[in-house]
This record gives sequence, C-alpha cells and structure tokens, in this order.
Amino acid sequence: MSKWVYNFGSYGTEGKASMKDLLGGKGANLAEMCSLGLPVPPGFTITTEVCNWYFEHDKKYPEDLKSQVMNSLRVVEEGLSRKFGSGEKPLLLSIRSGASSSMPGMMDTVLNLGLNDRTVDGMVDETRDDRFVYDSYRRFIQMYGNVVLGIENEIFESMLEDYKGDRGFSLDADLTGEDWKVLIPIFKNRVKEEFGVSFPEDPKAQLWGAIGSVFGSWMNSRAKTYRRIHGISEKLGTAVNVQAMVFGNMGKDCATGVCFSRNPSTGENKFFGEFLVNAQGEDVVAGIRTPQPLTLAEKKASGINSASMEECFPGLFSELCKIRERLEAHYKDMQDMEFTIERGHLWMLQTRNGKRTIKAALQIASDMVKEGLINKQDALIMINPGQLDQLLHPMLDPNTQTDVIGHGLPASPGGATGRIVFSARDAEEWAANGEKIILVRTETSPEDIGGMHAAEGILTTRGGMTSHAAVVARGMGLPCVTGATDLRIDLINKTLIAGSHKFLEGDTLTIDGTAGNIMVGAVNMILPEITGDFQTIMGWADEIRTMGVRANAETPEEAETAKNFGADGIGLSRTEHMFFDPDRINHMREMILAPDQNLRRAALAKLLPYQRDDFIQLFRIMDGLPVTVRLLDPPLNEFLPRTEDEILKVAEVAESDVKAINVRKQELEESNPMLGHRGCRLAITYPEVYEMQARAIFEATAAVAKEGLEITPEVMIPLVGIKLELSVLSDLVTQVAEAVSTELGVEFKYMIGTMVELPRACLIADEIAKIADFFSFGTNDLTQTTFGFSRDDINSFLEIYLKKGIISKDPFVTLDEKGVGKLIKLGVEKGRNVKPGLKIGICGEHGGDPESINFCQELGLTYVSCSPFRVPIARLAAAQAAIQEKQRAA
Amino acid sequence: MSKWVYNFGSYGTEGKASMKDLLGGKGANLAEMCSLGLPVPPGFTITTEVCNWYFEHDKKYPEDLKSQVMNSLRVVEEGLSRKFGSGEKPLLLSIRSGASSSMPGMMDTVLNLGLNDRTVDGMVDETRDDRFVYDSYRRFIQMYGNVVLGIENEIFESMLEDYKGDRGFSLDADLTGEDWKVLIPIFKNRVKEEFGVSFPEDPKAQLWGAIGSVFGSWMNSRAKTYRRIHGISEKLGTAVNVQAMVFGNMGKDCATGVCFSRNPSTGENKFFGEFLVNAQGEDVVAGIRTPQPLTLAEKKASGINSASMEECFPGLFSELCKIRERLEAHYKDMQDMEFTIERGHLWMLQTRNGKRTIKAALQIASDMVKEGLINKQDALIMINPGQLDQLLHPMLDPNTQTDVIGHGLPASPGGATGRIVFSARDAEEWAANGEKIILVRTETSPEDIGGMHAAEGILTTRGGMTSHAAVVARGMGLPCVTGATDLRIDLINKTLIAGSHKFLEGDTLTIDGTAGNIMVGAVNMILPEITGDFQTIMGWADEIRTMGVRANAETPEEAETAKNFGADGIGLSRTEHMFFDPDRINHMREMILAPDQNLRRAALAKLLPYQRDDFIQLFRIMDGLPVTVRLLDPPLNEFLPRTEDEILKVAEVAESDVKAINVRKQELEESNPMLGHRGCRLAITYPEVYEMQARAIFEATAAVAKEGLEITPEVMIPLVGIKLELSVLSDLVTQVAEAVSTELGVEFKYMIGTMVELPRACLIADEIAKIADFFSFGTNDLTQTTFGFSRDDINSFLEIYLKKGIISKDPFVTLDEKGVGKLIKLGVEKGRNVKPGLKIGICGEHGGDPESINFCQELGLTYVSCSPFRVPIARLAAAQAAIQEKQRAA
Repeated sequence: MSKWVYNFGSYGTEGKASMKDLLGGKGANLAEMCSLGLPVPPGFTITTEVCNWYFEHDKKYPEDLKSQVMNSLRVVEEGLSRKFGSGEKPLLLSIRSGASSSMPGMMDTVLNLGLNDRTVDGMVDETRDDRFVYDSYRRFIQMYGNVVLGIENEIFESMLEDYKGDRGFSLDADLTGEDWKVLIPIFKNRVKEEFGVSFPEDPKAQLWGAIGSVFGSWMNSRAKTYRRIHGISEKLGTAVNVQAMVFGNMGKDCATGVCFSRNPSTGENKFFGEFLVNAQGEDVVAGIRTPQPLTLAEKKASGINSASMEECFPGLFSELCKIRERLEAHYKDMQDMEFTIERGHLWMLQTRNGKRTIKAALQIASDMVKEGLINKQDALIMINPGQLDQLLHPMLDPNTQTDVIGHGLPASPGGATGRIVFSARDAEEWAANGEKIILVRTETSPEDIGGMHAAEGILTTRGGMTSHAAVVARGMGLPCVTGATDLRIDLINKTLIAGSHKFLEGDTLTIDGTAGNIMVGAVNMILPEITGDFQTIMGWADEIRTMGVRANAETPEEAETAKNFGADGIGLSRTEHMFFDPDRINHMREMILAPDQNLRRAALAKLLPYQRDDFIQLFRIMDGLPVTVRLLDPPLNEFLPRTEDEILKVAEVAESDVKAINVRKQELEESNPMLGHRGCRLAITYPEVYEMQARAIFEATAAVAKEGLEITPEVMIPLVGIKLELSVLSDLVTQVAEAVSTELGVEFKYMIGTMVELPRACLIADEIAKIADFFSFGTNDLTQTTFGFSRDDINSFLEIYLKKGIISKDPFVTLDEKGVGKLIKLGVEKGRNVKPGLKIGICGEHGGDPESINFCQELGLTYVSCSPFRVPIARLAAAQAAIQEKQRAA
Repeated sequence: MSKWVYNFGSYGTEGKASMKDLLGGKGANLAEMCSLGLPVPPGFTITTEVCNWYFEHDKKYPEDLKSQVMNSLRVVEEGLSRKFGSGEKPLLLSIRSGASSSMPGMMDTVLNLGLNDRTVDGMVDETRDDRFVYDSYRRFIQMYGNVVLGIENEIFESMLEDYKGDRGFSLDADLTGEDWKVLIPIFKNRVKEEFGVSFPEDPKAQLWGAIGSVFGSWMNSRAKTYRRIHGISEKLGTAVNVQAMVFGNMGKDCATGVCFSRNPSTGENKFFGEFLVNAQGEDVVAGIRTPQPLTLAEKKASGINSASMEECFPGLFSELCKIRERLEAHYKDMQDMEFTIERGHLWMLQTRNGKRTIKAALQIASDMVKEGLINKQDALIMINPGQLDQLLHPMLDPNTQTDVIGHGLPASPGGATGRIVFSARDAEEWAANGEKIILVRTETSPEDIGGMHAAEGILTTRGGMTSHAAVVARGMGLPCVTGATDLRIDLINKTLIAGSHKFLEGDTLTIDGTAGNIMVGAVNMILPEITGDFQTIMGWADEIRTMGVRANAETPEEAETAKNFGADGIGLSRTEHMFFDPDRINHMREMILAPDQNLRRAALAKLLPYQRDDFIQLFRIMDGLPVTVRLLDPPLNEFLPRTEDEILKVAEVAESDVKAINVRKQELEESNPMLGHRGCRLAITYPEVYEMQARAIFEATAAVAKEGLEITPEVMIPLVGIKLELSVLSDLVTQVAEAVSTELGVEFKYMIGTMVELPRACLIADEIAKIADFFSFGTNDLTQTTFGFSRDDINSFLEIYLKKGIISKDPFVTLDEKGVGKLIKLGVEKGRNVKPGLKIGICGEHGGDPESINFCQELGLTYVSCSPFRVPIARLAAAQAAIQEKQRAA
C-alpha cells in the first residue's frame, strides 16, 4: 500500500523539508516548521504522486486515498477537539495547492471549507459573531462556487452589488450578519441555477470537490504558461495541503501578515514585512488594502503613518522575531513567511526561501558567509545567475535631469523605458511587434503573467512591496514600481493621469524600480560597475569554477567591456563586422564584384590595413589573453549595396556599372542563404579572402609582439563539414603565417581550429580533430541545422510551439540537450579520442545561458564564450556547475 | 623487403587476375594470360603501392625498387635473348599505365623505349628495314619528348610538316628511311632547345623517365576529372607495366587489332572486332584510319569492302578464335582484347572484361546463364544497374516521320535530342546553363571527357565502333553515333554540313545511337517496355533481393509507370503536388489567406473532394500494394500567387483584396524557407490542414474498400524533429480515421509513420519509434541539414568542390555514408531497439542510386523508394546488394 497522505501538526508530523518533491514546497515546509515546534495549524498533505496518478488515470484517485485522507482528518479533529461537519465546534479547513517549485497564485485555493447550514450554527455558537460567521459562509460559497464549480465571480459580485444597491449600502462593511444570512440562500440558488446541481451541503463532498479542483488547477492554462516560462516540468505535479482554518479577520485582536527575514529588495539584514489587522491572508497579497509596516524601523524609514506590528502586538511581534531567527538559522537562507493572528494567538502558515532582487541576493549571500551561517559554495549556489542580468544592464544615469511625474514603491530595481500599454494582452501584442513597452496596471493578477514577461518594466497604482506585481517582477528581473497612488488609470480612454499630465497609450515613460520614480520620456541609462558584494561573489566564483569564460567581442569597446566583466579572453571575434564600416564596405563590395582573382586580390589589398589595425587594437586590449578570430562567415550578398545610391557609389569605386552590379547581386541571391555559399565554402572558392584575413591577423600579431605584448591568436575556420575543407584552409593559413613571420622577422605562436556548427562536423569530429588545434561549437548554427529551424523564421511558429507545449524552451536560448547536445557530446568524445585534452569551447548564444553552461561542464568543455554583458552570469554559472559536479562526484 | 615488381611471361609469372588492386587491371590480366599459356610479350609490373609511395614521399621511389626493376628486366632479356641498350638484338620496351579500374587514355604511355643511336643500328641489322626502324626511332623521340619531357606534340608535327613541305612530300609514307634518319638529329636538337638538356641516350635513364612520367600522370587533371566523374579513389594508384615491344607495323605480315568475344553493342554471341594491317595499336583506337572487320560475317553484315582478318590471316584468326573461347571460359565474362601480329606471329597485349551497352549486357548475362557458363547471381552482378537507365528513358518513336540527314555507326544506343555545339568546352558551358546539347566532333579525345559528360548525345564524323567516342559514350550510357563520314564539320564557322543542309551551332538535331541515324529537329520519343532478356534478368533480381523497391509517385500516370516497372508499392506520394491544379490552387490560396480557423476550414472543405478523388484513383491503381502518403510539406508561400493577374483572381475567390494578399505574402516570406514554417510545423499551427488531408485519405480508403480493393494507407508526417510533434499529429490522424470509419461504417487498416529527415529526428529516433508505425528516411532534407547545404544553392560551389576534390561525389546523388549515413544508422538502431522489426525505408533521391541502395541493404532497411523510372535500377541494385551481403556473411 502506497502512502499518499502525510500528517503535520503538534500531534504528529510525518514529513520534512527535504521531501519537497513529494509534498510540494508548502507542505514540506509546514511539516518542517511543525518539527521545529513552531505554531502551525495542523493538517495533512496529499502528495504530488497522487497528482500524477490523477492525470494518468483519467482524473480518478488511487483506491486507498480516501481512507488515508479520512484517517488524517481524524488526527486533526482529535488534536483540535473539533469535528468536521459537526454542529458543535466544527472544524473548518483550508485547501491549498503546493508544488515543489513555487508557482504563486497560479493554482486554486479554497478557504472556510466545511461550512454548511448546520456547521454555521456551531460557529455562531462558538464565536458569538454572526456577522463574521455568515460573511465567512457567504465567502465560502462564493469561493467554492467560483473555484470548484467554475461559476464566474462576477456573478456573485453583481448579486452582492444589487443587494447593496437595493438597500442603499455602499461598503461590504455596511452589511450585518442578518444581511449576509439573507444573501446565502440567494447565492446557493444561483449556484444551482448556473451549475444545475445544488451547492454541496456535505462537508466531505465539499472536501473532495476542493481536492479535485486543486489537482485540476495544475493543468489550467495559467499554470501551464507559468511553468513554460519558468521551465518547470509538467511531471512534477502539485500536492494538496488540507489544513485547519485560522482566522485573521475575527476582530481587532486578529491580523494577518507576510514577512521576510531580511529585506528582499536591498538585502539588508533587517526584519521586513507587512500586515493587516482584522483581515484574511489573501488581502495582503492581493494589494486591495495598503498594508501596515511590520517594524517600527520600517515605519520610520518609509514615512508610513499606520501603526506597525511591533506597536500593535509587541508580544506576538517578539515571538515572531524569534521564529524569524529560528527559521533562518534552520534553513540557512532568507525566509518568506506568512502568519495569522487569531484572537491573540500567532499561527505560522508558511515559510519558504524568499524571492529577492539580485542586489539583495548578493548582499545576503555575502553577509551570511561573513556571519558564518553558510560557506562560499553555499553562497554561490544561492544566487540565480540569470538574475545578475539586472545588474549588467542599463540603470538610470544619476547625472541626468529627469521629469518625475509620480512616485511609488521601489518594488524591483533597475530602470526601464518604454511605451505604455494598459493590458497584458496589449503588452504581448506590442512586444511581439518589437515595441519596448511598460505595462501599466492598477494591480496585476496571475492572468497578466504573459504580458508582464513581455514588458520592459511594470507600474501599478496599488499594492505593496509584496503584491503580485512586485513578487513576479523581482522573479523576472523586471524593473517595477508598485502602489503609485498619485497616478490614476482611465481604462476606457487608455490614459494615465498624473495630476495635470495625461499620458496616452503609446506615450513613452521611464520607471526607476530602484527609487520608485516615474518619469516622462526616455532617460539616459548607464552600466553599473562590479563592486562590493557583487565583486566579492564573483571572486569566489572564479576561485571555484574550472571552465574558462570568454567573450564574443570584435570592437575595442566590446573587448574593454569583456575585460572589465572578467572575461578570460575572446572566444569569438567575428571579422565580418569589421567590413561594415563606411570606409571599408565599398572595398569589400569591389572585391565581391571583381570579375577575376587578380582584381579580387587588389580590392582585398585595400582592406588589409584596416583589418590589421583592428586586430592590433584588439590584441593590445587583450594582451596576455587568448583571442579567437573567426574568418569570414556570412554569404557575400550580405555586403552588397541595397539602395540605388549605394549601388551608384559602388559602381564608381569598383569601376563597374549599375547593371553589372545588379546582375552580380542576382547571381549571389540564395534561396536559403543559411545553407548556402558561406563560411569556409567562400574560401574554398575564393582562397584569397582568407589569405588576406590570415595576413592581417599575423601582421597584427607580429606588430604587437614587437611592442612586447603576448598574443597567441586562435584562427577559427567556420562552417567546416568536410575534413578536406579544413585541411586545405589550414594549410593556407599556415603558409601565410610562415610567410609573414619570415617577411617581418618575428616569431610568434598561433593556433588553427574550427567552428563545429554542422551535424556532419560532429559526426566526423575524429577526422577534424586530426587537423584542428581547437574546436569551438557554434551552437546557434548547430541548433538551426539539427532542428531544421531557421532562427530568422522560427517566430512564425515558435510561440505556438511553446504555447502548445511541443517544446518547453526556445532551443536558441537554452541548449537542447537531447538533440543538439547529443551531437556536441559525440563531437567532444570523437575529438578528444583523437587528441586527448583538445581545447574545446562553445561560442553560440548558449554560452551565456546558465543551464547550458552546466551542460558544458558535464561535457568537460574547456571554456564557454558569450556576449560581454553575460560574462559575469557565465562566471557564476560555471562556478555553480563546478560545485554541482563536485557534489555528483562525491 | 617489400616486393614492388611482379614478372610475367612464359619464363615465369608472379601475378594473377585477382591481384588487380596491386598490379592494376592490365598487369593482372597480362599475368593471368601468361599463366594460361597464351602468347604474351614478356615484361613486368611495378605495383600500385609504388605509386602511393611515390606521391607520399615527394615523388621519390622506395630504395629497393631499382634493383627489383633491374632483376626483372634481366629476366625479360634472358627469356627473349635480347639485351636492353645493346647494339645487337636490342630489347625495346613499352611502358604503360594500368590502374585497378580502367581509365582509358587518361594516363601516359611510352612505346619503342630503348632506342638510341647505338641500338637503332642493331635494329636495322636485325630487321633490314631502315625505314621502319628510323621511323620508330623518330616516333619514340617524339612520344618521349611529349609525354616525359612535356614538349608539345605540335612542335614535332610542324617540324615534320616543314621537312615534307621543303621536299614536296605530302604523306608520311613518302619519307624514306634516309629522310627519317635526317629528321632524328633535328628532333633531338629541338628537344635540347626546348628542354635545356639533351635527349637521354642512356636506355636506363629513358626507362626511369618513362616510369616517373606514368606515375605522374596519375595526378594529371584529365585523370583527376575522370576519377571524379567515375567515383574512383585517388588512393588506388596506377601500376606501371614494362613490356617487350612487338610491332604490328613491320610490313604486310603485321597487323594490330581490337576484338570482343561477343558483340558489345547487341550482345550477340558472335566474335566481333576491328584490325589494321601494318599498323601500331594506337592507330585502331585513335580512329585515324578506318579499320577492317575481324570476321567475314561482320564484313557481310556491315557491307564494308576491306578484307577481314578471317580472310587475310586465316591461320592466326583461328588461333585468335581459340584464345577468345579460352579467355571467355576462364573469365566467365565477355572479353575486350588487344592483339598484334608481328611478322606472322600473334601476340596478346591485353584482355579485360569488355564494356558494353546495357542491351548487350542483358543479353550476354542471360545467354551465359543459358549456356551454363555462369549462374543467376553471377549474371546479376555482371550488370551495372546505373546503365539500365538507358533503357528506361526515351527511345525514338518508330512511328514518327523523321528527316534523316546522315548516317554513321550505331556506337551507343538510345535517342537524344539537343542543340549542337562543336567543342567540349561549349558543351559544358551550355549544359551549365540548362541547355540540352549534342556534342559534335570530328573525333573525341580524352580532353573532351567533361564535355561528353555534359552532353545528351555524341556525334563524330570519324572513328569506328571502338573509337574513343564510342567506348566512353557506352560507358556513360550516352547515345552516340560515330564515323558519320557523310557529314562535315566547319569549325571556323561552327557549322555542320550534310550535303546541301547546313546546321549552325545551337540548331537542334536528334541522333539515334541504336540505328546510327542523324535527324533534323526534335523527334518523338517513347519508353521501351521491359521484355526479353531485361525481363528475365529483372525476374532473377526479384527472386534474390530482400529489400522492397517502391516508387515516389503521386499522379495516376506515375503510379502506372511505377507498377509497370515492377514497384512493390508507393513509398512517397507528395500530396502538395495535388494542390497545384488550376481548379484547386485558388481554394488552397483562399485557405492560406483566411484570417481565422473557420474560414480556413471552409476553404479546406472545398479541397477535400479533389484530394479524396486523387487518392481513390491512386488506390485503385495500387490495389493490394502499400501506398505511403505524405501530408502537406512545403511552406505555404509556395502556393501563393506571383503575377498580378493571379493575385486579382485570388482576391476574387477569397473575397479579399490585393493589398491584403500582398501583406499576407510578405508575412509568409522567409529568409530560409527550407528551415522555416513547413512540414508538420504547419499542422501544429493549422491542425485543420492535416485533418482535411487525413479525411481525404480515409474516405478514399473506405471508398475503395467498398469496391472490394485492399489498401492499407501509410500516412506519413513530414519534418518531425520533436517527439510531441508526432504524438500530437498522430493522435489527430487517428481521431479522423476513427471518425471516418464510424461515419461511413467501413472498417479499414492504416499506419501512421514519419519521415525522418532532420538530424534531431535521428538522434531521438527511439522516442519517435514509440509512436511511429514506420520510418521513411528523407535523405534529401537530411543531407541538406547534415551538411548545411541548400540543394537550391549548392551550385555556386559544388562544381569547385568536386574540381578541387574536396568531395568526390555530389552528396545529393550518392548518400554520404560517413556523415548522413551515420545519422541514418543511428536512427535505424535506435528505432529498432524500441520496436524490433520496425518498417524502415528511404524516399530521398538516393533510393534510386545503386551505391546508396547497397548501403541501405547494409543498414537492414525494409525498402527503398525512388522515381518510377529508376525502379528497375533499384530492383537490380537491391539484388546485387543482397548477393554481396550473402557473400560477406559467407
């Protein structure tokens, strides 16, 4: 008999924190808190295995589940001396989802479950507060009707509005217990009308309905979207947590709150949180009421007027502080906790590792090492490398004049400029058209996920630092300002009103998520430097990582950035970019238009000094570090003139005529340029092109060698698929190197290698390795040919592929291990088989993707190379990969 | 010590026929003839290993070669009681190349070697024929000067012309021995002038010079071109045959000839050949003098006036007839022999398996089985499957009126129509521009190979049935008419003159290589049927082959052809071709232009009946045989209108406007359509398209089932690279099948499989096999993505790749075993691992290529599928592959 249900509570706890996969994050942590002796309302967790069973068996349950649930329910009843469905001291339950990865707000929750016409009387007897009890009952019917029975919430809300209208009420608070009592049968009748079946009076039926609904919600489209974006597998499933209800809304001695053991935005080691007196938990998160600060210090710092918890409930506050310490010491990470105060009693409802800004993550990790709580490896593992991106992209330039039109909470740091739109759907559409947009909403909800993902930044006029918008934006690394209460949104006219200013849809605004400001128009941005905690952590990463991290860079600026960001060298310098300068492109075109080799050589001779000087500059910056130079790769027609003016100019330079140029243009046009006459194929047909490039590289090498600098250029021949392509061109480059060395009387070292970017190259990597001094996997092209996906054309179906779950990730972002990865593995094995210790890197965009970097570590690559701005991400990811490898080995 | 030299002759023979790789074809067969006791001038063979050694060691020889050559030379001297370089009974030698695959005329030959001012006197003493001797000496200087020293032959010829002019001679025959004697020092002086060094008097120096020249000629550009076209590896090398000279030009009792043991053109079991009295061997082949028939029967049949060998040399003829029988019985194949009669003595200079027309090949194979000489397997192996192509392509329609303007020898059968050109170079250029051309030459030479390959047919005004043009054309399967002596070529005006007719370059003519006729303009062609020997052989092939042979066919005509040619079913029916009909294309366009799914469905509903009827027709023809239907594959923009008229028409049908259509056209444009939104990707985004197609297939299946026919359609989903693509679409097709079955109340069987045509599909073939009922490798696309070669764009570099030897074969013609083949192997293994016995075929163009078919057999494929016209080729190739497999296993 399988165990499907795990109890937790002071009367016996069966789970623990390490059972996250089975119990979900929430369930595992509830169990763990119970084991630590913290005050947790008792309950039980139905495992994620049941979820999988459920979907694999046509939404049925395992046979023995029912008895296990009933047994666990009895334990809760006995522990609390309450009875589920009883007219006396009835037990009420909350039913919540809980997957192993947090998916906030994506799945269903049912509260107050167990209420019916009988138990409601027991509640009234017990609480003597019929207003609270009948309101709770009404809320339950509404929530259950909506979540489990699928009746639109609007229907209930409008019935309530009608009722209030009829009686001249304006607020919910105007309704008495009697009013709610009247509304309940009206709601129930409507449920029957809409749903066809009566509202279930039987609490057990209610319970099974709610359990089914939570499991069912694992497959709702919001949850699917969230998982797709966050790369969470469908196979994980959700657990269901059934827990005794506690109420934060029974009166003034009740409250509910959310708190972080350290500041999730700045990382400061200060207790931080928000709470609401006389409210249910959802009220804080939903951003409907603006919450009160947790601590006095916080209150002072933020200038908020409302009383802090430290003031309202000093005793419970100090109890909470102890719990904070206890939990952080236990979990060795910053905790995000939910609590409820029911009639003066503190209950912990949840704890989990808290989401944080990258700034906070770096400080917390660095602080905790200093505090002796964790070691350096733990610190490195705690940080999400992808999040570093936030620090590596533009921030507002503090020296720029800005026109601030409003202010809100600094919910997620960084600056963002974009055109404003007022719905998630518009955000997605505009972004799909290449617009950079700022999503402006009163408050966001889980339905907005897609639109938030598409935005550059998010601005809400309501909600706090822990509102949905704030949490999600921090997770996504999007700048976000919340609770900008001095702004108003007019949805009908799609206008944002800030005092006398009005901004229409499409107007450009800038938000500063670090300071909480909203500004008119675009604002200058600057790149922050790597200092402080960031630098500390990066230092640790470099100590631990075993893979090199290089940058893809060709301009001096890029090379400087790469060096500043700690690159170990250049892994890909694309020489073709060097030909696009206005004073060079016409010589390039002259070369392409030349009718014979001699004239091509003449044109190339004019390009030689430019290219040599480029390399000299690059080599001076990179002194002492390796530089991989890729010879000409793109098809020649990319260099040809497009406009009539350009054509006329080229005709002049190349002593040709417009007609001849157009004929040549047509000759060079290709049906599938990606699979056409490019890469080393160009040099098999026009060897003089690579000859010139090799000469430029080696003359530059000799020149900097004379200056006393140390450069060993790594000449990379692209798009090799056939052994002889490489051997012929390798011979050519070698000949040029020897000639230059003799001519200039300078000895220098160099390597000749190849870009492995075609399936065939992987398949014959043994043959290629006999000739190549190094491999660099060009995973962009390799992904294109392995999948048969053109990166330029994939957009017409990629979105649908992701939406339908045909693929879970864009293979051009995260390396496809199953397909492309297999070819790379084969290439590495075959290559190293022939040449043990062969230097092997990757230089596709995947070189900056943490998951792909981890795969590169598994493959034993020598280095990864990525865009200069992603170098720190890659350094951290490489360190994490090395740690994981060590752990696997141990 | 390696053995580099093998003797042959009546005084000790060291080689044999099976040592072809080491001794080359000529050397191995000379040795074999010696072992059979036939009269062969003695000599020795320097092995192909020496050739490889030579090129791997900077054109030097192994150390011990010299002593081995000298020892072997001594054996020849002793056997013949002659001495190399002696003034008394001097030994003269012929030095000839000989690779393991015949490469007629591609490499160097030196005759009469050993003559110098001393030995020439010995020859005169011996022969008492100073005219013959001094002419031989002159010829030797000329040949050696040209071949070994690289002096243009024209130089010698013009000196000879000058000499004749000065003395009023017109023919070479006018010169006396004294004249030749005078010319010799003139030639020698010129050699010194041109070459800088005196003509070598030392016979040993002559010998080593000639050996080096023959080895060197292995790498000349003609030889490289020939090898490239015939797919012969550079690594094989040539042997050098050094053999005692015999002379067919010592007088009236001398002759030289070429003969075939059966007629190489018709296949008849009749001795066939040509000879010339008082001539050297080269004279017959070069086509300078029109030769005499070998037999009396031949003379009568051809109406030639000159005396046959049977009449001139009755005794030697009967000796030759015995040798013919002996060799054929020994080699069990039709022999192509060269002989020389020196002063009444018959010498055999060469024997090899004779080239033949495919018609002859079939008859010879079939006859030899009947004669009990060989068995069926031997017969099948004897036939080159590629050559069958000649029988499967148009022949002249006998019922058409033709305007015959000339007549020649029927040198290679089949009809060809094309525009005439007068040089090999023009032939290559015109053909590269897509022109079908007929190459018209006085006679062809090895330099013309490229142009001959590019032509549809060849016409020469000189030369016999064994001339260069005839031999090469038969090998290539090109129609050819030789010796059309009533036509005249005016090269200056690029005109062909036939009596009063004149034809300019570019005019269209037709040649009939079966009858030897030349006709004005294009002539109707018909397809011959498979009857007689062809049918017999095909029957044997079917008995022996283990792989199925299907056809790629979609129209009823193609299906009929496929069936007539013996296809086992249809392996690829491309449904998109069915949409291009004028009455359908606009509905297709309407579908593409539809703004939503409902309108797309409406348009598709109009296409359904057409498609269903297509399948009904196809299924009726293929009753009882499998039919694989591939669902829509190409990108949608291939169906969109191009001209303004078309756009207007579509606008009308689709109730759209020109602007909207142009917008949609632009939306659908792709940078790399081959890697774009096509194949199953279309159906993931627009499932309704495959839904309609599946419905059409199953409704057709049900319809023919009601007629009592048996069809199990195999629905093939193209371009799958991801498991879920296949599983989602397989579910969709299954649902349609079940729905159609229920609606029409007809039970039918069907299979759902996939085209494996992306590297990724091969890499995850195990996952795919879990869903697929069958695989069909789409080797065209797989070759494109594995190499990264677009088939539409490869022409810009393929030619150069082949010329430079970067690749030896077009990978779109012959499957690249090393790269693409490895992926296929992986796919087969992974697929069968999951589903043993999985039905696997290939349906790329490689399915009709004999070498690729052999590879498919090695992989254990279930069937190959090719164009209907190649089905018989594939049947034979499959049989050969099965035989080879058996032989490997044994």
